[in-house]
Amino acid sequence: MSSSPNAAILPSGFFACGISARIKKSGKKDLALFYSHAPCVGRAMFTANRIQAAPISVCRRHLRSGAIRGLIVNSGNANCMTGKKGEQDARDMAAWTAQALGVRPQEILVASTGIIGKPMPMQKVRRAIPGLAASLAPQGFGDAAQAILTTDTFPKMASVAVRVGGRKVIVAGVAKGAGMIAPKLRSATMLGFVFTDAAVSRAMLGEVLRESVEESFNAITIDACMSTNDTVILLANGMAGNPPILNGSVGHRAFRAAVKMVCLELAQAIVRDAEGATKFIEVCVRGARDNEEAKRLAFAVADSNLFKCAMFGSDPNWGRIAAALGAAGPDLSWEKMSIALNGQKVFAAGRPVPLRRRDLLKGSRVEAVITLGRGKGVFRVYTSDLTLDYVKINADYN
Amino acid sequence: MSSSPNAAILPSGFFACGISARIKKSGKKDLALFYSHAPCVGRAMFTANRIQAAPISVCRRHLRSGAIRGLIVNSGNANCMTGKKGEQDARDMAAWTAQALGVRPQEILVASTGIIGKPMPMQKVRRAIPGLAASLAPQGFGDAAQAILTTDTFPKMASVAVRVGGRKVIVAGVAKGAGMIAPKLRSATMLGFVFTDAAVSRAMLGEVLRESVEESFNAITIDACMSTNDTVILLANGMAGNPPILNGSVGHRAFRAAVKMVCLELAQAIVRDAEGATKFIEVCVRGARDNEEAKRLAFAVADSNLFKCAMFGSDPNWGRIAAALGAAGPDLSWEKMSIALNGQKVFAAGRPVPLRRRDLLKGSRVEAVITLGRGKGVFRVYTSDLTLDYVKINADYN
Repeated sequence: MSSSPNAAILPSGFFACGISARIKKSGKKDLALFYSHAPCVGRAMFTANRIQAAPISVCRRHLRSGAIRGLIVNSGNANCMTGKKGEQDARDMAAWTAQALGVRPQEILVASTGIIGKPMPMQKVRRAIPGLAASLAPQGFGDAAQAILTTDTFPKMASVAVRVGGRKVIVAGVAKGAGMIAPKLRSATMLGFVFTDAAVSRAMLGEVLRESVEESFNAITIDACMSTNDTVILLANGMAGNPPILNGSVGHRAFRAAVKMVCLELAQAIVRDAEGATKFIEVCVRGARDNEEAKRLAFAVADSNLFKCAMFGSDPNWGRIAAALGAAGPDLSWEKMSIALNGQKVFAAGRPVPLRRRDLLKGSRVEAVITLGRGKGVFRVYTSDLTLDYVKINADYN
Repeated sequence: MSSSPNAAILPSGFFACGISARIKKSGKKDLALFYSHAPCVGRAMFTANRIQAAPISVCRRHLRSGAIRGLIVNSGNANCMTGKKGEQDARDMAAWTAQALGVRPQEILVASTGIIGKPMPMQKVRRAIPGLAASLAPQGFGDAAQAILTTDTFPKMASVAVRVGGRKVIVAGVAKGAGMIAPKLRSATMLGFVFTDAAVSRAMLGEVLRESVEESFNAITIDACMSTNDTVILLANGMAGNPPILNGSVGHRAFRAAVKMVCLELAQAIVRDAEGATKFIEVCVRGARDNEEAKRLAFAVADSNLFKCAMFGSDPNWGRIAAALGAAGPDLSWEKMSIALNGQKVFAAGRPVPLRRRDLLKGSRVEAVITLGRGKGVFRVYTSDLTLDYVKINADYN
């Protein structure tokens, strides 16, 4: 597995590129295109936010076509709450891209990320599309990964190769996200796009995506703010030439593991690049009644501003963990609870444990493990600290 | 109504004082005592957090006695998650106070606020109680209001006089709270203590308290972090000498209005003193299906870090309001939604409204009114902005 894929470990038949269309005032890259030589089976999951950006409805409709060829993505504008005009703009982006690629509009997906409620600068987009299409290349993934960023400080890519039915299958993905990250994908502005040359059925693709997202993109939170544009898309073009993957086979497990690894690496990269963050934090709840309860409690801690501020201060203030758990509401008994920070127990058997090391949390990684002793439920959430820079970035972003 | 009560507008028969017992390293006042000459009917509401501080269980038990004479409160230590020893400590605080006042232990209530998980410095408390009891005075409310503070920057007091059955009845209260404020009182660390000389039944006192808290202490949020120690206590000693208050009478309405005014003024003072805050923000949701939905949505906006950061930046970024509403989940239709900031519509009829004034939010007050157009539900939440100082206070508090 590599986190900076090159052409050698990209899936066969995929091309990409990223340019500046001047949507961003900064002049940074803001328009990306992904293209598959062969038609793809595609599955996607979108934000659970009731307010959804215009491109999401275009994706939902076009995914029904069953043969996806491309995906155009802009950063710098979310195209959300932009009314009927915004919906037309998203459709136009698909149509113009299709025209430039010589395919049908319903074979193109669209995604956007940026500020909510501003009209899309469609003249700039229209002018940029032919040049964008002309620069597609297998080596273009790096530029594309750049072009989808907003407040991110580095591009996020991951890829894995596995053997399926005797053929090498490659799964590669790109993602963006640094703020407004608390994805609950049912089916952040977080964007994740995963491409594979596996030959795989639509049903299996959907099931593998759901399972992978649950433990990756749906297990991260930066600021507990769910975006209107969160989108994860998984496209499979079949060009690896593997035989059909049978349910429950070794190949199925290998393919699922590959997609999970790519999704988890991208999701963790988003948390590492969290706006203003100085720490990468894992909150693991064990011994809950079930995984659902473990997940709710792990998020209650990971979303607590006071916990996140204490982490910024490298302070092992486990009282804030306890307060967050108690506020999340199940009938917890703190007599059975234990809390460990970076491997040291700080609360156990109903009592505080004296700290031996005051510098326990000085490093850039924190692992908080909460054990409840009421069942077998487990869940692990990835988050970041709440810092001065997070507030600066989100108060002074104009 | 006055927000800095003096003896003239304090309820008859109540005495108070506040001193330093050296629980706080700073040497600031940290121990308060409230005393009533006549036995009080008392009702209280406590945090909905499942982790509850030791003093809360003492209060629950002693409130059953039906005749409360005093309330001892310390700041600087929450006496929470302190095990069996902490429970004994809270009982001892009541017992020692009772002894100093010549009353029974079950006539004394106890409250604590401060850091979670540290043992109470009981020797200091024991030494301080006799002197504390000796300094009780009607003019002592100001000192008591000081002694219950933690990160607060000013004491919070309010009082109201009304006529009930031909007699002047006074309702006066003190409160503290500046962080870990998202109270859900069923029955912050927010502490609110309200005293009245009204003669009122236990049942009516409970009902008036519940109603008042719902629109005051339960309508504020500073950081969405529910405390383990939140406590609101309402004590009535009957010394105004009013005739029994009949259900639904003019006197009932006057008394209820007085308690509501005192609770609301104290709750708003807590938000004005929010850790690091530069703005006092009201979020009002109208036209929801019912009040419960309006409340949920108003809190979703008020608890959004991104909304709160935008307010700190004086930026009318209503997209963050919309994202927070959509994340809260009901089947909203943004075509019917409108959003106004400080009286100016920024989103209406499915479309952004161009801003005439960029300095709309420059002042220290913000009112956000969201109209949903789907019913008659209304709720108003009071909150603060998320600032650099909030993070500093909560990362570097040692």
